Parts: sequence; C-alpha cells; structure tokens
Amino acid sequence: MANETFGLLCIGNELLSGKVAETNLAYWIQEFKKLGRRVTVAIMAPDERSLLVDTIRFIRQNCDILLMSGGIGPTHDDFTLPVLAEALNKPLVRYPELVEAIEGYYGENTNSHLLSMADLPEGTELLYWDQLLVPLFRVEQIYVFPGAPNLLRKKFSLLAKDLSSIPNYVHKIYTTFDEGVIAGPMEQIEQRFPGVYVGSYPRYDPGADYRVLVTMESKDKELLQRAYENLMTQDFQSGVLRVNSEEPKPVSTDS
Amino acid sequence: MANETFGLLCIGNELLSGKVAETNLAYWIQEFKKLGRRVTVAIMAPDERSLLVDTIRFIRQNCDILLMSGGIGPTHDDFTLPVLAEALNKPLVRYPELVEAIEGYYGENTNSHLLSMADLPEGTELLYWDQLLVPLFRVEQIYVFPGAPNLLRKKFSLLAKDLSSIPNYVHKIYTTFDEGVIAGPMEQIEQRFPGVYVGSYPRYDPGADYRVLVTMESKDKELLQRAYENLMTQDFQSGVLRVNSEEPKPVSTDS
Repeated sequence: MANETFGLLCIGNELLSGKVAETNLAYWIQEFKKLGRRVTVAIMAPDERSLLVDTIRFIRQNCDILLMSGGIGPTHDDFTLPVLAEALNKPLVRYPELVEAIEGYYGENTNSHLLSMADLPEGTELLYWDQLLVPLFRVEQIYVFPGAPNLLRKKFSLLAKDLSSIPNYVHKIYTTFDEGVIAGPMEQIEQRFPGVYVGSYPRYDPGADYRVLVTMESKDKELLQRAYENLMTQDFQSGVLRVNSEEPKPVSTDS
Repeated sequence: MANETFGLLCIGNELLSGKVAETNLAYWIQEFKKLGRRVTVAIMAPDERSLLVDTIRFIRQNCDILLMSGGIGPTHDDFTLPVLAEALNKPLVRYPELVEAIEGYYGENTNSHLLSMADLPEGTELLYWDQLLVPLFRVEQIYVFPGAPNLLRKKFSLLAKDLSSIPNYVHKIYTTFDEGVIAGPMEQIEQRFPGVYVGSYPRYDPGADYRVLVTMESKDKELLQRAYENLMTQDFQSGVLRVNSEEPKPVSTDS
C-alpha cells in the first residue's frame, strides 16, 4: 500500500439533516495525515439506495481504496451491504459464522432483521475478528466500518497498523504579501520541482500578523529543501515573517 | 424554492490533507436544518481539475441546487470558475465590472493572476454586490462561495433570507429496546405513513440511560401525530423512557 489513493464515504440521513454532527470524516483525514497520506475525496451521503450505488461507483472510479461507514445495523434504513453488492455486481451471501455470532448474542430475540446483518457481498473477508465483537468487512478494495465513532476508531486503529507510513516534510512560510502578488513565483516552483506541492492560505482575520500562509510539502526532503531555497532567493524573502518546518510524525495506533 | 434538493461541495487540498479543518459543510448543514431542509449530498474534493468537473456533474445529476466553496482566488491552485465553465460546457467571459473592481482595489499591483478572478462562466449573475466587497456568483442553479468561513457565512446569510423556510416537526423517543427488536415496528410506520421519516440511533456509551433513540419527523404536524400514536399503541410504549418534541425553529439570518 505505497501509492494508493483513498476515498471516504459516510452514510446517514442524520448527518445531512444536521441531527448528528459528522465526526468520522475529520477523524479519518487526521489519521491519514499522520500516515503521511492525503485523502482524495470525502463524501456524506444519505440512506438512499440508488444514490449510494452511484456514489460508491463514483468514488471507485477516482480512488483505489474506499473506506465507508454507517448503515450496517438491522433497521429499515440500514442497507449499506446490499447497496455495496449492487454497486459491485455481486450477490449477497449469508455467512454462517455471522449467523452463529448473532444467535449467540441475541438468543431467543434473534429475528430476520438481525439476521440480515449476516448477509454480505460475495467474497467479503472478515478482518480482525479475534480482536473485535464484530469483524471489519473488506470486499475488493472497500472497507466497511460502523457509523458509531467509537467503534469506527477501534476498527481503524487495527487497520492503520497495516497501512505503511510515508513521511511528509513541510515548510510553513508566513508572509505579508497579498496572494495575487506571489501567485507567479508559487506557480513557478510547482512547475520546476515536480513532487513539491505549494499551497497558499490567505488569513482574513484582521488581528493576524501575516496576510498569506504559504506551505511547501514533499515526501523528498532534499527536493523540498532545493525548492525552498529557490523560492527564498527571489524577492520573496523580504515579505517573510517566519518559517515553521515540520518533520514527519510517527504513526499513532491508539484509539 | 419549495421542494428543491441541495448538494454541497467544498474544494481544497488543505481540507483533505488535514492541514485545515473543514467547517463549511457543518455550517451549511446546520443552516439548512434551521430552514427545515435536508442536504442531499456533501462532498470535499481536492484542487484537481478533472476530478472537480466529474464531481460537479455527479452532484448536478442528483441535486437541483449546488452550493460550492473554495478555489476562487488568484493563485495557481484556484480554478473553480474555469472548472465550472467546463462542467457546464460554457465559455469563460471576462466581466468588465469585476476588472474595474480589481483594478480599483489593487491599483498598480494588478496583474494577470488577479485579473483571472474576473473570468466567469458565461451567464453568471453577480448577487448582493451592493452589500459585499465581492459578489456572490450564481450560474444556472449553482452558487459559488469563497472558502474562507467568515466570508462564506456573510454571503450565505444574504442568500438564506431568499430561501423560503419549511417547518419540520420532530419527536425524539428514548427507549430501552435493542435496535434489532424494534426494526419491524419502525419499518411499518414508514410504510403506513408516507411523509413521516423514522430514524434509529443506538447509544454505545455505557453511561447513557437509553439504548436506542428513535426519531420521527415530518413537515405535516397532524400526520406525525397520527404516526406517533400508532407506534405508541403497539408493545412499544413499555420500553420508552421519555419523549422530547421539537417545534420548527425560526430562521436565523445573522452571521
């Protein structure tokens, strides 16, 4: 898993109606940041079957790996797994080991709604089950998480250990320039140093001492340093207040 | 604007890399909640032209109205407006009134990067310019906002006054049931009372006094009451701890 691209999908009417504040996307984005990776696209979508099928297909066209959460419970608005089967053109298959687990947990309260949680797209793997009450599901390059944040985090912390970390080096340059004035130099740097990414973030707060934060980042420390020195030898340095540099952070695996 | 569906798109690598925490989606979702409306889909996407074109088209296929933010500044990673022109198959047109405003503001510092902010998809309307330094852009049913949260909020508060409010009535029912056990009754209510939406939210915190929060909501107060009474006459009531009812809230127009 060195260069894959990642898409995120959080499912639930309650997220889009504002009844529940969405927190899983922000959590995942920060965890991928610790791993030195950037998410390609992040989506909140409602409990609507045909829209979900389209959304899953849209993300798959643009990302190698999809992490999705929500809609895997037993109620009428839980249909992530059937939708996933449809999006992948796979049949749903009842997993006997999940039936056994559900019957073991619910006993005489077991009913058809609960048993529907044992129906997964054909070929789904059950991961980390020895460490979890309910396994993490993977089918092709799609990982299916529960919507509840504490359960999602527990499962992701197990997966994160298996994702290799790619370090990212960053310079944050605080300047007094107007963004339009330095647009040219920044564009040149990106063109001359492929693999170095330049961002600019105007600060609109009148209390701030800077006007634009310029960021330069790369996985190649030496390349980043050459690009940085190149930018600084232009007229640029006259408007620089200060520079903060970030080394890669170690991967967190706690939850 | 009575029954339209809304899609949201926030653009910026910094959101997906975790460098900047995304706050505009959560803001918009809460504002739409105050208006009694639900957002259909909400997406964070990076500064990548072809992916943005595809994302805009994907949202347009599923929503009547699109609100998008970010990427409208003068730098090399700002190309929301050209991308929008491409997604809509419209040419970019230079707006003389915007050129005049840019030259008036920047004087002798005006350059080609700054002037590119005056190039809009053909047919774009400039809204609320008498009340704003930079107008809100609308083209077809797409509204284009800046990414900076304070500017976005100021512009949205003007637009919100023109969106008619549809009240939403809600019952929140806190129960001691397991979610699987009440899946059947909840499904029946949605089938028998079209226009009433039932949601269920398990509480995983062991400190909570309830196990599942059931929500019922509708824009039709009487219909909601009939559905509520129907649910309560089943065996359901034995597991209900308490019920909170919400009346529609007035629309907030402050920012």
